[in-house]
Amino acid sequence: VRSQLPSICSTARAAWIQHSHYSTSTPAATPSKTEEHRSVFDISTKVLAESDIAKHDDKLFITHPLFPHPTFSQEDCEKVMFEHREPKTFGDRMACKGIAIVRGTFDFVTGYKKPRNEAEEAHGFKGTRYEMTESKWLTRVIFLESIAGVPGAVASFVRHLHSLRLLKRDKAWIETLLDEAFNERMHLLTFIKLGKPSWFTRTIIYVGQGVFCNLFFLFYLANPKYCHRFVGYLEEEAVSTYTHLIYELEHNKLPKFKDIKIPTIAVQYWPELHEDSSFLDLILRIRADEAKHREVNHTLANLDQRKDRNPFVLQIPEETRPQPENGLKVTKGTGWEREDLTL
Amino acid sequence: VRSQLPSICSTARAAWIQHSHYSTSTPAATPSKTEEHRSVFDISTKVLAESDIAKHDDKLFITHPLFPHPTFSQEDCEKVMFEHREPKTFGDRMACKGIAIVRGTFDFVTGYKKPRNEAEEAHGFKGTRYEMTESKWLTRVIFLESIAGVPGAVASFVRHLHSLRLLKRDKAWIETLLDEAFNERMHLLTFIKLGKPSWFTRTIIYVGQGVFCNLFFLFYLANPKYCHRFVGYLEEEAVSTYTHLIYELEHNKLPKFKDIKIPTIAVQYWPELHEDSSFLDLILRIRADEAKHREVNHTLANLDQRKDRNPFVLQIPEETRPQPENGLKVTKGTGWEREDLTL
Ligand SMILES: [Fe+2]
Ligand SMILES: [Fe+2]
Ligand SMILES: [Fe+2]
Ligand SMILES: [Fe+2]
Repeated sequence: VRSQLPSICSTARAAWIQHSHYSTSTPAATPSKTEEHRSVFDISTKVLAESDIAKHDDKLFITHPLFPHPTFSQEDCEKVMFEHREPKTFGDRMACKGIAIVRGTFDFVTGYKKPRNEAEEAHGFKGTRYEMTESKWLTRVIFLESIAGVPGAVASFVRHLHSLRLLKRDKAWIETLLDEAFNERMHLLTFIKLGKPSWFTRTIIYVGQGVFCNLFFLFYLANPKYCHRFVGYLEEEAVSTYTHLIYELEHNKLPKFKDIKIPTIAVQYWPELHEDSSFLDLILRIRADEAKHREVNHTLANLDQRKDRNPFVLQIPEETRPQPENGLKVTKGTGWEREDLTL
Repeated sequence: VRSQLPSICSTARAAWIQHSHYSTSTPAATPSKTEEHRSVFDISTKVLAESDIAKHDDKLFITHPLFPHPTFSQEDCEKVMFEHREPKTFGDRMACKGIAIVRGTFDFVTGYKKPRNEAEEAHGFKGTRYEMTESKWLTRVIFLESIAGVPGAVASFVRHLHSLRLLKRDKAWIETLLDEAFNERMHLLTFIKLGKPSWFTRTIIYVGQGVFCNLFFLFYLANPKYCHRFVGYLEEEAVSTYTHLIYELEHNKLPKFKDIKIPTIAVQYWPELHEDSSFLDLILRIRADEAKHREVNHTLANLDQRKDRNPFVLQIPEETRPQPENGLKVTKGTGWEREDLTL
C-alpha cells in the first residue's frame, strides 16, 4: 500500500506515527517531555493543561465584540443538525464536488473519517490512524477555522471595492460577510487558547492561506454566486464535523476536554457562555454558527449578486411570509429560495 | 504654454473648456441640453436639480449603519482646522513627499488650486481654469472619496488575514480601519446622490482604484507603518480641501449647493443631520470625519504594528492622562505619540 501513496501522504503518515506516540500519554500527564523529540512534520497540537490555559488566557484590553453575537438558546443549539442542499445547476455540482475532493484529501492526509453508522460512531476507529484524540481534534479545528475566516473577508473586501468603483450601494451584504469573517476568527482565537499547534501545522496554515486566499479572491471576482455556494457546502461539512465532535464529547470519548476551562474571549463573545460553561457548550454554539453560515451562503448563492439586497439584516414589519433572520428561531439549512424572499 | 503641457493635461484642458461652457448655465436651468454635446473626456459632474435629487434618492431597505457614527456637535465641527504633522523620520518624509506629488499632479490636471492667502480665497481664481464650480467640486469629492475608501479596507483585510494565519489576536485595529472604510463609502454614496459623474470620470475612478488598490495592498504588506503615515498626510489634504469648500459655501460662492436637499443616506448616517440640514452641515461633518482619520492614521503610524493595541476603541477607567477617543471632544490632529499612550 505504501508505495501507492504520494509523498505528501508518507509525510502525513510519519506525522501520524509521531502523533500516535504522543496520544498514548495519559490525559493528565503533560506532554512536555516528548516535545523535544517531535519530528518537524509533527501535526499534533499540544492540548494545554488546566494551569496552562489560565496562564495563556488573555484578559488584557478585550473590547466589546465588533459584531455582537446573537443569543442562541441551548435548546436551539442542540437541535442543529447536518442538512444537505441538493445541487441543482451545473455550478452547484461543481461547488459540491469541489468540497468533496478537498475534504476527502484533507481527511485522508490528516487521518480522519466521518463515522457513517452507529457502530463507527461507537468504536470511533479506535486503534487505527483514524482515531480522533483531543490533540487531533484541536489541530483539525484550528486549521479549518483559519481557512474558514477567509471567504467572508474576501467577499466583503471585493464588494466594498465594487461599491466604491461603481458608485453603487452594496445593500448590506458586506455587513453579514464581515460578521461571518469575524465570527470565524473568534472560533480560531478561542481554540488557540486551548492548545498549542506544532510548527509544522503553523507552516501549513500559513502556506494554506496563501494558496486558498488568492484562489478564492480570483474566483470571487469571476463568479461570486458559486463562491457562496462553495462556502455553503463547506459549512455543511463544518456542521457535520462539529456534530461528530459533539457526539464524542457527549459520550465521554475525549477526557482532556471534560473539565477544560473555556477562555475569556469565548465568555466575552457568546452571550450565553460564562466562566463555568463547558467545552461542549462552546462547541454547540460554534456548530450553530456554522449552520447559520451554511444558511446565509446558500441563500446568497440563490440571489442576484448585483441587484438583490441581503435579506438577513432588515426585517420588514408588513411582511407576512417567514423571512430570514440572524438568530436560530427561524432557519433554513439548505438556504432560502429567491422567490420566497422580499428583496 | 500649451506646447509644454503633456498630453493628459491637454485632455484636461479640453474637458475644462467643455466644463466652463456647462458651468455658465444658471443654477436653476437643467443642463440636459448640453449633455448630448459632451466630449468623451468630459469630467464635469451633472449637479442634480432639486426634483432630480428627490427622484434619485433611495429610501428602500436602508439598514442601520454597520458602524454607527459618533455624535459631533456643530461647534466641534466648526473648530476643525488644517493641521500638519512635521515629518520626523525618512519614511515620514517619503510619505509626505508622496502625497505632495500625487496631489500636485491631480490638482494641476483637474484644474484646482488651494488658495494660499485671503485674496486668492476671495476671488477664487474666477475666470481661470482653477475656478471651482459646483460641478467641479462634485467631481473632485466623488473621485477622492472613491479612493479614500480603499486604505481602510485593505488594511483591515490584511490584518484579518494576518491574525488568521499567525493565530494571533489583532488588538482591535481592524475595527477602526473597517469603520474608516465604511465612513468613506458613506461619504461617496452621499455625494453620488447629489450629482451624476460623467462616463469619463467613472472610467478614471474604475482604473484609478485598480492601480491604487494594488499598490496600496503591496505597500501595506511590506510596510504598514508608513502606509498609515501616508494616509495621515492624505487626510491632512482632505481636511484642507473641505475647509476650502466650507469657505466657499459660507461665502455663497456655490449657489447650486445653497438650498440643496441632502440625501436620505446622510440623514440616516450622521446622528445630528435631519431632512432640513444644509449641505454646509453635511460638509462640516465630513471634514470632521477626515480630521478624525488624520488623527487615527498618524497615531497608528506611531505604534508598533505587531504588538500595540488600537488605543481608540477602549477607554481605561483608571487612566489619568488624556487618551484617544472616537468623538471630537479629545483630539490630536497630528497624532498621539506612542509614549503618551497606555498600550
Ligand atoms: Fe468556524
Ligand atoms: Fe463557518
Ligand atoms: Fe471622506
Ligand atoms: Fe478620510
